[in-house]
Amino acid sequence: MTDIASALWLSAHPTDRSLNGALRAAGVAHLSRDSAVATSDLYAMGWQAALTEDDLGGVGGDQTFGTRTREAHLAGTLAPDIRTEQAKLREADLLVLQFPLWWGGMPAILKGWFDRVFVNGFAFNVTNAAGRTLKYGEGGLEGKRALVVVTAGDRAPSFAAGGVNGHLEALLFPLLHGILWYTGIQPLHPHLIAATDRREFGGLNHERDRLLTRLDGLPAEEPIDYRTLRHGGYDRDQRLVTDAAPLDLGIHECVAVPA
Amino acid sequence: MTDIASALWLSAHPTDRSLNGALRAAGVAHLSRDSAVATSDLYAMGWQAALTEDDLGGVGGDQTFGTRTREAHLAGTLAPDIRTEQAKLREADLLVLQFPLWWGGMPAILKGWFDRVFVNGFAFNVTNAAGRTLKYGEGGLEGKRALVVVTAGDRAPSFAAGGVNGHLEALLFPLLHGILWYTGIQPLHPHLIAATDRREFGGLNHERDRLLTRLDGLPAEEPIDYRTLRHGGYDRDQRLVTDAAPLDLGIHECVAVPA
Repeated sequence: MTDIASALWLSAHPTDRSLNGALRAAGVAHLSRDSAVATSDLYAMGWQAALTEDDLGGVGGDQTFGTRTREAHLAGTLAPDIRTEQAKLREADLLVLQFPLWWGGMPAILKGWFDRVFVNGFAFNVTNAAGRTLKYGEGGLEGKRALVVVTAGDRAPSFAAGGVNGHLEALLFPLLHGILWYTGIQPLHPHLIAATDRREFGGLNHERDRLLTRLDGLPAEEPIDYRTLRHGGYDRDQRLVTDAAPLDLGIHECVAVPA
Repeated sequence: MTDIASALWLSAHPTDRSLNGALRAAGVAHLSRDSAVATSDLYAMGWQAALTEDDLGGVGGDQTFGTRTREAHLAGTLAPDIRTEQAKLREADLLVLQFPLWWGGMPAILKGWFDRVFVNGFAFNVTNAAGRTLKYGEGGLEGKRALVVVTAGDRAPSFAAGGVNGHLEALLFPLLHGILWYTGIQPLHPHLIAATDRREFGGLNHERDRLLTRLDGLPAEEPIDYRTLRHGGYDRDQRLVTDAAPLDLGIHECVAVPA
Protein backbone atom coordinates (compact mmCIF):
# COMPACT_ATOMS: atom_id res chain seq x y z
CA MET A 1 0.00 0.00 0.00
CA THR A 2 1.55 3.25 -1.13
CA ASP A 3 -0.18 6.47 -0.23
CA ILE A 4 -0.49 9.14 -2.87
CA ALA A 5 -0.04 12.40 -1.00
CA SER A 6 0.70 14.39 -4.12
CA ALA A 7 0.44 13.87 -7.85
CA LEU A 8 1.35 15.62 -11.07
CA TRP A 9 -1.10 15.03 -13.94
CA LEU A 10 0.60 15.69 -17.26
CA SER A 11 -1.58 15.74 -20.38
CA ALA A 12 -1.10 16.49 -24.04
CA HIS A 13 -4.13 16.86 -26.29
CA PRO A 14 -4.71 19.83 -28.61
CA THR A 15 -8.25 20.46 -27.42
CA ASP A 16 -10.32 20.01 -24.26
CA ARG A 17 -13.32 19.15 -26.46
CA SER A 18 -12.08 15.61 -26.76
CA LEU A 19 -12.19 12.22 -25.10
CA ASN A 20 -8.82 13.05 -23.58
CA GLY A 21 -10.16 16.33 -22.23
CA ALA A 22 -13.14 14.64 -20.60
CA LEU A 23 -11.08 11.85 -19.07
CA ARG A 24 -8.51 14.31 -17.83
CA ALA A 25 -11.09 16.45 -16.04
CA ALA A 26 -12.68 13.41 -14.41
CA GLY A 27 -9.35 11.89 -13.40
CA VAL A 28 -7.94 15.06 -11.89
CA ALA A 29 -11.14 15.73 -9.94
CA HIS A 30 -11.24 12.17 -8.65
CA LEU A 31 -7.60 12.07 -7.58
CA SER A 32 -7.94 15.49 -5.94
CA ARG A 33 -10.35 14.10 -3.34
CA ASP A 34 -7.48 12.52 -1.41
CA SER A 35 -4.30 13.94 -2.93
CA ALA A 36 -2.77 17.29 -3.76
CA VAL A 37 -2.83 17.29 -7.56
CA ALA A 38 -0.76 19.62 -9.71
CA THR A 39 -1.49 19.66 -13.43
CA SER A 40 0.46 20.44 -16.58
CA ASP A 41 -1.92 20.59 -19.52
CA LEU A 42 0.82 21.13 -22.07
CA TYR A 43 -1.26 22.45 -24.97
CA ALA A 44 -3.21 24.80 -22.71
CA MET A 45 0.09 26.05 -21.25
CA GLY A 46 1.55 26.65 -24.71
CA TRP A 47 4.49 24.49 -23.62
CA GLN A 48 7.59 24.83 -25.80
CA ALA A 49 8.38 21.35 -27.14
CA ALA A 50 11.93 21.70 -28.44
CA LEU A 51 14.96 21.95 -26.15
CA THR A 52 17.03 24.82 -27.56
CA GLU A 53 20.17 26.85 -26.96
CA ASP A 54 17.98 29.58 -25.49
CA ASP A 55 16.95 27.22 -22.69
CA LEU A 56 20.50 27.22 -21.27
CA GLY A 57 20.43 30.79 -20.03
CA GLY A 58 23.66 31.78 -21.74
CA VAL A 59 25.82 28.78 -20.84
CA GLY A 60 28.07 28.65 -23.89
CA GLY A 61 31.60 27.44 -24.46
CA ASP A 62 33.08 24.63 -26.48
CA GLN A 63 31.58 21.73 -24.60
CA THR A 64 28.88 19.54 -26.08
CA PHE A 65 25.29 20.66 -25.94
CA GLY A 66 24.51 17.90 -23.43
CA THR A 67 27.30 18.96 -21.11
CA ARG A 68 26.12 22.55 -21.28
CA THR A 69 22.57 21.56 -20.30
CA ARG A 70 24.10 20.02 -17.17
CA GLU A 71 26.02 23.20 -16.41
CA ALA A 72 22.90 25.29 -16.91
CA HIS A 73 20.97 23.04 -14.53
CA LEU A 74 23.66 23.18 -11.86
CA ALA A 75 24.03 26.96 -12.29
CA GLY A 76 20.26 27.45 -12.04
CA THR A 77 20.09 29.22 -15.39
CA LEU A 78 17.68 26.87 -17.17
CA ALA A 79 14.59 28.53 -18.62
CA PRO A 80 12.00 29.37 -15.94
CA ASP A 81 9.33 27.09 -17.40
CA ILE A 82 11.72 24.14 -17.13
CA ARG A 83 12.54 24.91 -13.50
CA THR A 84 8.85 25.26 -12.67
CA GLU A 85 8.13 21.79 -14.05
CA GLN A 86 11.11 20.31 -12.20
CA ALA A 87 9.74 21.75 -8.96
CA LYS A 88 6.27 20.31 -9.63
CA LEU A 89 7.81 16.91 -10.34
CA ARG A 90 9.93 16.98 -7.18
CA GLU A 91 6.76 17.39 -5.11
CA ALA A 92 4.88 14.52 -6.71
CA ASP A 93 4.65 10.95 -5.42
CA LEU A 94 2.71 9.94 -8.51
CA LEU A 95 3.13 11.08 -12.09
CA VAL A 96 0.19 10.55 -14.47
CA LEU A 97 1.05 10.82 -18.16
CA GLN A 98 -2.08 11.07 -20.29
CA PHE A 99 -1.92 11.32 -24.05
CA PRO A 100 -3.30 10.06 -27.34
CA LEU A 101 -0.94 7.52 -28.90
CA TRP A 102 0.42 9.37 -31.91
CA TRP A 103 2.63 7.26 -34.16
CA GLY A 104 3.23 4.73 -31.43
CA GLY A 105 4.32 7.18 -28.78
CA MET A 106 3.96 10.53 -27.11
CA PRO A 107 2.86 13.63 -29.01
CA ALA A 108 5.90 15.83 -29.63
CA ILE A 109 4.82 18.35 -27.02
CA LEU A 110 5.03 15.68 -24.31
CA LYS A 111 8.27 14.16 -25.57
CA GLY A 112 9.61 17.69 -25.37
CA TRP A 113 8.58 17.91 -21.73
CA PHE A 114 11.03 15.09 -21.02
CA ASP A 115 13.69 16.47 -23.37
CA ARG A 116 13.60 19.82 -21.59
CA VAL A 117 12.76 18.94 -17.97
CA PHE A 118 14.74 15.70 -17.54
CA VAL A 119 18.15 17.31 -18.07
CA ASN A 120 21.60 16.02 -17.28
CA GLY A 121 22.23 16.32 -13.54
CA PHE A 122 18.54 16.44 -12.67
CA ALA A 123 17.17 13.19 -14.04
CA PHE A 124 20.34 11.41 -15.12
CA ASN A 125 24.08 11.47 -14.45
CA VAL A 126 23.20 11.61 -10.78
CA THR A 127 25.66 9.91 -8.41
CA ASN A 128 25.43 8.63 -4.87
CA ALA A 129 27.80 9.58 -2.04
CA ALA A 130 30.29 6.95 -3.19
CA GLY A 131 30.36 8.42 -6.70
CA ARG A 132 28.43 5.60 -8.36
CA THR A 133 26.13 6.74 -11.18
CA LEU A 134 22.53 5.90 -10.38
CA LYS A 135 20.33 4.59 -13.17
CA TYR A 136 17.74 1.91 -13.96
CA GLY A 137 15.69 1.80 -10.80
CA GLU A 138 17.88 4.22 -8.91
CA GLY A 139 18.38 7.92 -9.37
CA GLY A 140 17.30 11.41 -8.52
CA LEU A 141 13.62 10.60 -9.02
CA GLU A 142 13.60 7.37 -7.00
CA GLY A 143 10.53 6.71 -4.89
CA LYS A 144 8.03 8.10 -7.38
CA ARG A 145 5.62 6.03 -9.43
CA ALA A 146 4.10 6.76 -12.84
CA LEU A 147 0.90 5.75 -14.61
CA VAL A 148 0.66 6.11 -18.38
CA VAL A 149 -2.92 6.62 -19.62
CA VAL A 150 -3.13 6.33 -23.37
CA THR A 151 -5.92 6.51 -25.93
CA ALA A 152 -5.61 4.74 -29.28
CA GLY A 153 -7.79 4.44 -32.34
CA ASP A 154 -7.05 0.77 -32.99
CA ARG A 155 -8.61 -2.09 -31.09
CA ALA A 156 -6.94 -3.53 -27.99
CA PRO A 157 -5.86 -6.87 -29.50
CA SER A 158 -3.64 -5.07 -32.00
CA PHE A 159 -1.62 -3.79 -29.00
CA ALA A 160 -1.55 -7.17 -27.19
CA ALA A 161 0.83 -10.11 -27.53
CA GLY A 162 1.42 -10.64 -31.21
CA GLY A 163 -0.65 -7.61 -32.14
CA VAL A 164 0.20 -6.02 -35.46
CA ASN A 165 1.07 -2.68 -33.87
CA GLY A 166 3.38 -4.26 -31.32
CA HIS A 167 2.60 -4.92 -27.67
CA LEU A 168 1.74 -1.65 -25.95
CA GLU A 169 4.45 -2.17 -23.34
CA ALA A 170 6.97 -2.77 -26.09
CA LEU A 171 5.91 0.35 -28.00
CA LEU A 172 6.16 2.31 -24.75
CA PHE A 173 9.42 0.63 -23.69
CA PRO A 174 11.45 3.79 -24.41
CA LEU A 175 9.17 5.69 -22.02
CA LEU A 176 8.50 3.02 -19.40
CA HIS A 177 12.03 1.63 -19.18
CA GLY A 178 14.22 4.19 -20.93
CA ILE A 179 12.84 7.31 -19.25
CA LEU A 180 10.87 6.38 -16.15
CA TRP A 181 12.74 3.33 -14.88
CA TYR A 182 16.08 4.80 -15.99
CA THR A 183 15.58 7.80 -13.73
CA GLY A 184 14.38 5.76 -10.75
CA ILE A 185 10.62 6.22 -11.26
CA GLN A 186 8.60 3.01 -10.95
CA PRO A 187 6.32 2.58 -13.99
CA LEU A 188 2.93 0.94 -13.48
CA HIS A 189 1.39 -1.09 -16.28
CA PRO A 190 -0.08 1.39 -18.76
CA HIS A 191 -3.81 2.03 -18.93
CA LEU A 192 -5.05 1.61 -22.50
CA ILE A 193 -8.27 3.17 -23.79
CA ALA A 194 -8.59 1.50 -27.18
CA ALA A 195 -10.76 1.55 -30.30
CA THR A 196 -11.57 5.24 -29.88
CA ASP A 197 -12.13 5.52 -33.64
CA ARG A 198 -14.15 2.32 -33.94
CA ARG A 199 -17.51 0.80 -33.19
CA GLU A 200 -15.85 -1.38 -30.54
CA PHE A 201 -15.22 1.73 -28.41
CA GLY A 202 -16.64 1.26 -24.92
CA GLY A 203 -18.02 4.80 -24.68
CA LEU A 204 -17.04 7.73 -22.51
CA ASN A 205 -18.99 6.66 -19.43
CA HIS A 206 -17.53 3.18 -19.47
CA GLU A 207 -13.99 4.44 -19.96
CA ARG A 208 -14.38 7.12 -17.32
CA ASP A 209 -15.54 4.52 -14.79
CA ARG A 210 -12.71 2.21 -15.72
CA LEU A 211 -10.14 4.99 -15.29
CA LEU A 212 -11.47 6.11 -11.91
CA THR A 213 -11.54 2.51 -10.68
CA ARG A 214 -7.95 2.14 -11.81
CA LEU A 215 -6.99 5.28 -9.90
CA ASP A 216 -8.70 3.96 -6.77
CA GLY A 217 -6.61 0.83 -6.92
CA LEU A 218 -3.25 2.50 -7.52
CA PRO A 219 -2.03 2.43 -3.90
CA ALA A 220 -2.12 -1.37 -3.93
CA GLU A 221 -0.64 -1.84 -7.41
CA GLU A 222 2.76 -3.35 -8.08
CA PRO A 223 4.89 -1.57 -10.69
CA ILE A 224 6.45 -3.30 -13.68
CA ASP A 225 9.22 -5.46 -12.31
CA TYR A 226 12.11 -4.30 -14.47
CA ARG A 227 15.58 -5.49 -13.67
CA THR A 228 18.01 -3.26 -11.78
CA LEU A 229 21.71 -3.31 -12.48
CA ARG A 230 22.14 -4.59 -8.91
CA HIS A 231 20.10 -7.68 -9.77
CA GLY A 232 23.06 -8.74 -11.83
CA GLY A 233 22.78 -10.69 -15.04
CA TYR A 234 24.55 -8.06 -17.14
CA ASP A 235 28.10 -8.54 -18.37
CA ARG A 236 30.75 -5.82 -18.52
CA ASP A 237 29.26 -4.53 -21.77
CA GLN A 238 25.89 -4.15 -20.03
CA ARG A 239 24.41 -6.99 -22.01
CA LEU A 240 22.29 -9.66 -20.40
CA VAL A 241 23.88 -13.07 -20.25
CA THR A 242 20.98 -14.94 -21.77
CA ASP A 243 19.87 -16.86 -24.81
CA ALA A 244 16.68 -14.84 -25.14
CA ALA A 245 15.75 -13.60 -28.60
CA PRO A 246 17.61 -10.45 -29.65
CA LEU A 247 14.61 -8.19 -29.84
CA ASP A 248 12.67 -9.57 -26.90
CA LEU A 249 12.32 -6.56 -24.61
CA GLY A 250 10.66 -8.79 -22.05
CA ILE A 251 14.06 -10.14 -21.05
CA HIS A 252 14.56 -6.95 -19.09
CA GLU A 253 11.80 -7.89 -16.74
CA CYS A 254 13.03 -9.39 -13.51
CA VAL A 255 11.49 -12.80 -13.87
CA ALA A 256 14.31 -15.18 -14.80
CA VAL A 257 17.62 -13.84 -13.60
CA PRO A 258 20.45 -15.91 -15.11
CA ALA A 259 22.52 -17.68 -12.49
CA MET B 1 20.03 -2.09 -56.96
CA THR B 2 17.81 0.90 -56.27
CA ASP B 3 18.85 4.24 -57.66
CA ILE B 4 18.61 7.28 -55.44
CA ALA B 5 17.53 10.07 -57.75
CA SER B 6 16.34 12.29 -54.95
CA ALA B 7 16.66 12.38 -51.19
CA LEU B 8 15.36 14.35 -48.23
CA TRP B 9 17.83 14.69 -45.34
CA LEU B 10 15.98 15.47 -42.12
CA SER B 11 18.06 16.42 -39.09
CA ALA B 12 17.38 17.57 -35.56
CA HIS B 13 20.24 18.87 -33.44
CA PRO B 14 20.16 22.19 -31.58
CA THR B 15 23.51 23.35 -32.91
CA ASP B 16 25.68 22.90 -36.00
CA ARG B 17 28.75 23.00 -33.76
CA SER B 18 28.26 19.35 -32.91
CA LEU B 19 29.09 15.85 -34.06
CA ASN B 20 25.65 15.75 -35.64
CA GLY B 21 26.30 19.00 -37.47
CA ALA B 22 29.60 17.74 -38.89
CA LEU B 23 28.17 14.40 -39.96
CA ARG B 24 25.17 16.07 -41.50
CA ALA B 25 27.29 18.42 -43.61
CA ALA B 26 29.48 15.55 -44.81
CA GLY B 27 26.56 13.27 -45.54
CA VAL B 28 24.55 15.83 -47.46
CA ALA B 29 27.56 16.85 -49.56
CA HIS B 30 28.41 13.23 -50.33
CA LEU B 31 24.89 12.24 -51.31
CA SER B 32 24.56 15.38 -53.43
CA ARG B 33 27.24 14.16 -55.84
CA ASP B 34 24.79 11.75 -57.46
CA SER B 35 21.36 12.71 -56.13
CA ALA B 36 19.15 15.77 -55.77
CA VAL B 37 19.16 16.32 -52.00
CA ALA B 38 16.63 18.47 -50.19
CA THR B 39 17.26 19.20 -46.52
CA SER B 40 15.16 19.99 -43.50
CA ASP B 41 17.43 21.06 -40.63
CA LEU B 42 14.58 21.39 -38.16
CA TYR B 43 16.31 23.50 -35.52
CA ALA B 44 17.75 25.85 -38.11
CA MET B 45 14.29 26.17 -39.68
CA GLY B 46 12.69 26.94 -36.33
CA TRP B 47 10.28 24.10 -37.06
CA GLN B 48 7.13 24.09 -34.91
CA ALA B 49 7.05 20.78 -33.06
CA ALA B 50 3.49 20.57 -31.78
CA LEU B 51 0.51 19.88 -34.04
CA THR B 52 -2.13 22.43 -33.02
CA GLU B 53 -5.61 23.67 -33.87
CA ASP B 54 -4.02 26.53 -35.76
CA ASP B 55 -2.47 24.05 -38.19
CA LEU B 56 -5.91 23.13 -39.54
CA GLY B 57 -6.59 26.44 -41.27
CA GLY B 58 -9.97 26.96 -39.68
CA VAL B 59 -11.45 23.48 -40.10
CA GLY B 60 -13.66 23.30 -37.03
CA GLY B 61 -16.89 21.53 -36.25
CA ASP B 62 -17.79 18.78 -33.84
CA GLN B 63 -15.68 16.02 -35.31
CA THR B 64 -12.61 14.68 -33.55
CA PHE B 65 -9.33 16.48 -33.91
CA GLY B 66 -7.95 13.60 -35.98
CA THR B 67 -10.87 13.72 -38.41
CA ARG B 68 -10.46 17.46 -38.78
CA THR B 69 -6.76 17.08 -39.66
CA ARG B 70 -7.90 14.83 -42.52
CA GLU B 71 -10.42 17.41 -43.69
CA ALA B 72 -7.81 20.14 -43.54
CA HIS B 73 -5.42 18.02 -45.60
CA LEU B 74 -8.04 17.21 -48.23
CA ALA B 75 -9.18 20.85 -48.33
CA GLY B 76 -5.59 22.08 -48.70
CA THR B 77 -5.84 24.31 -45.64
CA LEU B 78 -3.04 22.77 -43.59
CA ALA B 79 -0.36 25.23 -42.45
CA PRO B 80 2.04 26.18 -45.25
CA ASP B 81 5.11 24.73 -43.49
CA ILE B 82 3.38 21.34 -43.32
CA ARG B 83 2.46 21.41 -47.01
CA THR B 84 6.01 22.38 -47.93
CA GLU B 85 7.42 19.37 -46.08
CA GLN B 86 4.83 17.07 -47.65
CA ALA B 87 5.93 18.26 -51.08
CA LYS B 88 9.60 17.67 -50.25
CA LEU B 89 8.78 14.19 -49.05
CA ARG B 90 6.74 13.36 -52.15
CA GLU B 91 9.79 14.11 -54.30
CA ALA B 92 12.20 11.94 -52.33
CA ASP B 93 13.19 8.35 -53.12
CA LEU B 94 15.24 8.22 -49.93
CA LEU B 95 14.52 9.75 -46.54
CA VAL B 96 17.47 10.17 -44.16
CA LEU B 97 16.53 10.80 -40.53
CA GLN B 98 19.51 11.98 -38.52
CA PHE B 99 19.24 12.72 -34.81
CA PRO B 100 20.81 12.27 -31.40
CA LEU B 101 18.98 9.55 -29.46
CA TRP B 102 17.23 11.50 -26.71
CA TRP B 103 15.47 9.33 -24.16
CA GLY B 104 15.44 6.37 -26.48
CA GLY B 105 13.91 8.13 -29.43
CA MET B 106 13.60 11.19 -31.59
CA PRO B 107 14.02 14.69 -30.18
CA ALA B 108 10.59 16.30 -29.83
CA ILE B 109 11.15 18.59 -32.79
CA LEU B 110 11.55 15.56 -35.09
CA LYS B 111 8.67 13.60 -33.56
CA GLY B 112 6.65 16.73 -34.26
CA TRP B 113 7.66 16.63 -37.91
CA PHE B 114 5.84 13.29 -38.18
CA ASP B 115 2.91 14.42 -36.00
CA ARG B 116 2.35 17.43 -38.26
CA VAL B 117 3.41 16.22 -41.72
CA PHE B 118 2.13 12.61 -41.64
CA VAL B 119 -1.53 13.55 -41.32
CA ASN B 120 -4.64 11.49 -41.85
CA GLY B 121 -5.26 11.13 -45.60
CA PHE B 122 -1.66 11.86 -46.53
CA ALA B 123 0.33 9.19 -44.71
CA PHE B 124 -2.44 6.97 -43.34
CA ASN B 125 -6.09 6.17 -43.96
CA VAL B 126 -5.22 5.95 -47.63
CA THR B 127 -7.23 3.48 -49.70
CA ASN B 128 -6.70 1.77 -53.02
CA ALA B 129 -9.16 1.79 -55.92
CA ALA B 130 -11.07 -1.10 -54.37
CA GLY B 131 -11.52 0.80 -51.12
CA ARG B 132 -9.06 -1.30 -49.10
CA THR B 133 -7.09 0.71 -46.50
CA LEU B 134 -3.38 0.52 -47.21
CA LYS B 135 -0.98 0.10 -44.30
CA TYR B 136 2.08 -1.84 -43.17
CA GLY B 137 4.16 -1.99 -46.29
CA GLU B 138 1.54 -0.37 -48.50
CA GLY B 139 0.29 3.19 -48.58
CA GLY B 140 0.65 6.66 -49.92
CA LEU B 141 4.41 6.71 -49.38
CA GLU B 142 5.12 3.29 -50.91
CA GLY B 143 8.29 2.97 -52.93
CA LYS B 144 10.41 5.18 -50.72
CA ARG B 145 13.17 3.97 -48.42
CA ALA B 146 14.45 5.48 -45.17
CA LEU B 147 17.77 5.40 -43.33
CA VAL B 148 17.86 6.35 -39.64
CA VAL B 149 21.24 7.76 -38.54
CA VAL B 150 21.45 8.06 -34.79
CA THR B 151 24.12 9.17 -32.32
CA ALA B 152 24.12 7.87 -28.75
CA GLY B 153 26.28 8.46 -25.70
CA ASP B 154 26.30 4.86 -24.53
CA ARG B 155 28.43 2.13 -26.04
CA ALA B 156 27.13 -0.05 -28.87
CA PRO B 157 26.74 -3.29 -26.86
CA SER B 158 24.16 -1.63 -24.63
CA PHE B 159 21.98 -1.24 -27.74
CA ALA B 160 22.62 -4.77 -29.06
CA ALA B 161 20.89 -8.07 -28.26
CA GLY B 162 20.35 -8.17 -24.51
CA GLY B 163 21.74 -4.67 -24.08
CA VAL B 164 20.54 -2.84 -21.01
CA ASN B 165 19.03 -0.01 -23.05
CA GLY B 166 17.14 -2.38 -25.31
CA HIS B 167 18.09 -3.39 -28.83
CA LEU B 168 18.29 -0.30 -31.01
CA GLU B 169 15.79 -1.74 -33.50
CA ALA B 170 13.39 -2.42 -30.64
CA LEU B 171 13.76 1.08 -29.23
CA LEU B 172 13.16 2.45 -32.71
CA PHE B 173 10.33 0.01 -33.49
CA PRO B 174 7.68 2.75 -33.19
CA LEU B 175 9.57 4.72 -35.85
CA LEU B 176 10.81 1.88 -38.08
CA HIS B 177 7.65 -0.21 -38.05
CA GLY B 178 4.95 2.07 -36.64
CA ILE B 179 5.68 5.15 -38.77
CA LEU B 180 7.85 4.21 -41.74
CA TRP B 181 6.65 0.68 -42.53
CA TYR B 182 3.08 1.58 -41.60
CA THR B 183 2.99 4.27 -44.27
CA GLY B 184 4.64 2.11 -46.93
CA ILE B 185 8.21 3.40 -46.55
CA GLN B 186 10.84 0.66 -46.43
CA PRO B 187 13.13 1.14 -43.41
CA LEU B 188 16.79 0.19 -43.72
CA HIS B 189 18.66 -1.08 -40.68
CA PRO B 190 19.55 1.99 -38.59
CA HIS B 191 23.07 3.39 -38.59
CA LEU B 192 24.33 3.75 -35.01
CA ILE B 193 27.14 6.10 -34.00
CA ALA B 194 27.74 5.04 -30.41
CA ALA B 195 29.79 6.00 -27.36
CA THR B 196 29.85 9.65 -28.33
CA ASP B 197 30.29 10.58 -24.63
CA ARG B 198 32.90 7.93 -23.94
CA ARG B 199 36.52 7.05 -24.51
CA GLU B 200 35.39 4.20 -26.78
CA PHE B 201 34.15 6.79 -29.35
CA GLY B 202 35.70 6.13 -32.73
CA GLY B 203 36.31 9.79 -33.51
CA LEU B 204 34.79 12.12 -36.06
CA ASN B 205 36.97 11.05 -38.99
CA HIS B 206 36.25 7.39 -38.42
CA GLU B 207 32.52 7.94 -38.06
CA ARG B 208 32.39 10.24 -41.06
CA ASP B 209 34.10 7.61 -43.21
CA ARG B 210 31.81 4.93 -41.91
CA LEU B 211 28.72 7.02 -42.69
CA LEU B 212 29.84 7.90 -46.23
CA THR B 213 30.67 4.25 -46.91
CA ARG B 214 27.21 3.32 -45.70
CA LEU B 215 25.65 5.89 -48.03
CA ASP B 216 27.66 4.52 -50.97
CA GLY B 217 26.24 1.07 -50.33
CA LEU B 218 22.60 2.10 -49.94
CA PRO B 219 21.46 1.28 -53.48
CA ALA B 220 22.34 -2.37 -52.91
CA GLU B 221 20.94 -2.64 -49.38
CA GLU B 222 17.91 -4.71 -48.45
CA PRO B 223 15.41 -3.04 -46.10
CA ILE B 224 14.21 -4.62 -42.86
CA ASP B 225 11.96 -7.47 -43.88
CA TYR B 226 8.85 -6.64 -41.87
CA ARG B 227 5.72 -8.61 -42.43
CA THR B 228 2.91 -7.22 -44.58
CA LEU B 229 -0.72 -7.94 -43.82
CA ARG B 230 -0.83 -9.76 -47.15
CA HIS B 231 1.80 -12.21 -45.92
CA GLY B 232 -0.90 -13.54 -43.64
CA GLY B 233 -0.27 -14.92 -40.21
CA TYR B 234 -2.60 -12.45 -38.47
CA ASP B 235 -6.00 -13.46 -37.13
CA ARG B 236 -9.15 -11.35 -37.34
CA ASP B 237 -7.99 -9.34 -34.33
CA GLN B 238 -4.76 -8.51 -36.17
CA ARG B 239 -2.74 -10.68 -33.84
CA LEU B 240 -0.10 -13.06 -35.05
CA VAL B 241 -0.97 -16.71 -34.71
CA THR B 242 2.23 -17.71 -32.99
CA ASP B 243 3.69 -18.89 -29.70
CA ALA B 244 6.37 -16.23 -29.71
CA ALA B 245 6.98 -14.35 -26.48
CA PRO B 246 4.49 -11.55 -25.85
CA LEU B 247 6.97 -8.70 -26.05
CA ASP B 248 9.18 -10.08 -28.79
CA LEU B 249 8.96 -7.42 -31.48
CA GLY B 250 11.07 -9.62 -33.71
CA ILE B 251 8.04 -11.75 -34.45
CA HIS B 252 6.93 -9.05 -36.84
CA GLU B 253 9.87 -9.71 -39.07
CA CYS B 254 9.05 -11.84 -42.03
CA VAL B 255 11.30 -14.78 -41.23
CA ALA B 256 9.03 -17.54 -39.96
CA VAL B 257 5.53 -17.12 -41.25
CA PRO B 258 3.20 -19.50 -39.40
CA ALA B 259 1.52 -21.98 -41.71
